[in-house]
Amino acid sequence: MSGNSSIRGYIKLPSPAYILSAASAGGVHETSGPLGGRFDVTDNTGSDRFGKSTWEDSESEMQRLTLTSSMKKINVSDADISAVFAGDLQNQCVGSNYGLLDFDIPYFGLYGACSTAAEALILASVLVTGISSEYAGTAAAVASSHNSAAERQFRSPVEYGGQRTPTAQWMVTGAGAFILGCAGMPGLPAIKEVLVGRSVDMGINDLCNMGAAMAPAAVDTLKRYFDITNTRPDGYDLILTGDLGYEGSRIFRDFMATEGYETDSKHSDCGLMIYDSKATDKHAGGSGCGCSASVLAADIIPRIISGELNNILFMATGALMSPASVWQGKNIPGICHLLHIERG
Amino acid sequence: MSGNSSIRGYIKLPSPAYILSAASAGGVHETSGPLGGRFDVTDNTGSDRFGKSTWEDSESEMQRLTLTSSMKKINVSDADISAVFAGDLQNQCVGSNYGLLDFDIPYFGLYGACSTAAEALILASVLVTGISSEYAGTAAAVASSHNSAAERQFRSPVEYGGQRTPTAQWMVTGAGAFILGCAGMPGLPAIKEVLVGRSVDMGINDLCNMGAAMAPAAVDTLKRYFDITNTRPDGYDLILTGDLGYEGSRIFRDFMATEGYETDSKHSDCGLMIYDSKATDKHAGGSGCGCSASVLAADIIPRIISGELNNILFMATGALMSPASVWQGKNIPGICHLLHIERG
Repeated sequence: MSGNSSIRGYIKLPSPAYILSAASAGGVHETSGPLGGRFDVTDNTGSDRFGKSTWEDSESEMQRLTLTSSMKKINVSDADISAVFAGDLQNQCVGSNYGLLDFDIPYFGLYGACSTAAEALILASVLVTGISSEYAGTAAAVASSHNSAAERQFRSPVEYGGQRTPTAQWMVTGAGAFILGCAGMPGLPAIKEVLVGRSVDMGINDLCNMGAAMAPAAVDTLKRYFDITNTRPDGYDLILTGDLGYEGSRIFRDFMATEGYETDSKHSDCGLMIYDSKATDKHAGGSGCGCSASVLAADIIPRIISGELNNILFMATGALMSPASVWQGKNIPGICHLLHIERG
Repeated sequence: MSGNSSIRGYIKLPSPAYILSAASAGGVHETSGPLGGRFDVTDNTGSDRFGKSTWEDSESEMQRLTLTSSMKKINVSDADISAVFAGDLQNQCVGSNYGLLDFDIPYFGLYGACSTAAEALILASVLVTGISSEYAGTAAAVASSHNSAAERQFRSPVEYGGQRTPTAQWMVTGAGAFILGCAGMPGLPAIKEVLVGRSVDMGINDLCNMGAAMAPAAVDTLKRYFDITNTRPDGYDLILTGDLGYEGSRIFRDFMATEGYETDSKHSDCGLMIYDSKATDKHAGGSGCGCSASVLAADIIPRIISGELNNILFMATGALMSPASVWQGKNIPGICHLLHIERG
């Protein structure tokens, strides 16, 4: 039995898992941000409803449209996809359950909080490369969040108008869908190795400071990854965290510096990329499963395909809590899953 | 790309995934049922609290104690386990998040509703057999539910005393933990092949009839499995569903008969095994992630090891809904994941 604790969770894939296709969705605030023109799926009526009458259904519809878009890009049908890994932040993950109901694809439901995009990509990678291609030629990964569905579930009604603190983040209305395969063409993003996160609890219990709750997990994962692979930040074009925001990114970089790794010149955060830094009400930046999923699909993957980026670390972060656990005074542990993606 | 829709989700593992160890927990009602003496973890104060002050923490403690018990049985430590796959029914899966926080093991959070035990076992099987043993020698799977934590989240306060309908099921207070490895000894349960479920929506929207919501998914999965493997019910010692209960089991058997498969002599259901059929308030039987997980660990696996059972199908069923989705008038789709387990 493997007894080397330092490499646990580290998986060098038997062969690269290629990202054959990716698609993204964005809501009103996201499409008016710096990446606005790059989303595949938007609501052209200028709302976040995507044609549905409840916020919960709107999120499901984003998932449905985004997976459909990713499939159309490479002309595959339900019958070509061996399994879909999906998750969101709604109670009992109904955003995914209902969003993917129309697809005739075997379904794995995940809950990784805001790290779900990375968790889904890891499991899809393991499936398509670890199991004979006869059974698992391609697999899909989908994650989403919706600001209004999340606000009424996690915090106060949107209409309430409560003041948010400067460290609070803005839940992204967005989704990302990815189709992975074991056989890819040169130039496609190729997942080479992954590191599964472990829960890290540093005593944070402030619902309005998720960045601080998640940053220690990102540090734990990245430091373990550097140790295992004997690499350093300068070996990568980009070290991309999921949704640490301003506060969490600052903590992450400071902690990494303390550990002897200067990441300032390589690090970016999806939560800082998705909104203009001067945008109203965004406070410490974007968050949510849809944040890292949509930024990876809309911005990063096209930049890998174009050759601008050749070698990145994608590290989606999640805060493991529920409203009930916070009311009961429990801490908010963080988790961070990492994927090393190269231009194939 | 694989284009054969009938075999999608079917995975013949590269080599058997052995269940090296299993442990179970049960609450007051469960330990006074037919399997009462077989649970590894019980609360000897005669409550369902397991020493904790909230129901939510009690569920987490069951997960912690059950995984610990499964590890002690084969004398492994955190450092021996490459990853844990876990889930429960609490919002944002905090039962697992907090229950497994003390373990230094990379963590995959799942949401498969009551099918979580099977989903976790499938993914752990794929990891330990699909990926080089250097990285994934063993993996753990954990699932739980707690009656009181679930009652106050999904339905009405336990104290309310509302009448339940005859088709209502009783949420099991229980947990199961399993440690899987790619190298096992003769006589251990060996997972040979799996079939990932797909969502099936037959229009059921009655929260008090989950059996009817889940039975069509069990039929869909079992019929697909028989078609793919060209086998029939008489090829197995036991066809075990997770928590269909009386109503769902009757529907399942009737539907299978309509499809030309007589399952009456082979079928049993964890929800029917865990309580005495005359027990007060259990109505249509047990349900919840902890139902199939604890019955598999406490009863079925020992019977495989003893040689009483040699060849079984384990099919955990889940109902994909949330209280909000039911309030919004949505149907309750079902899902069913299948594992073929032989005595190795």
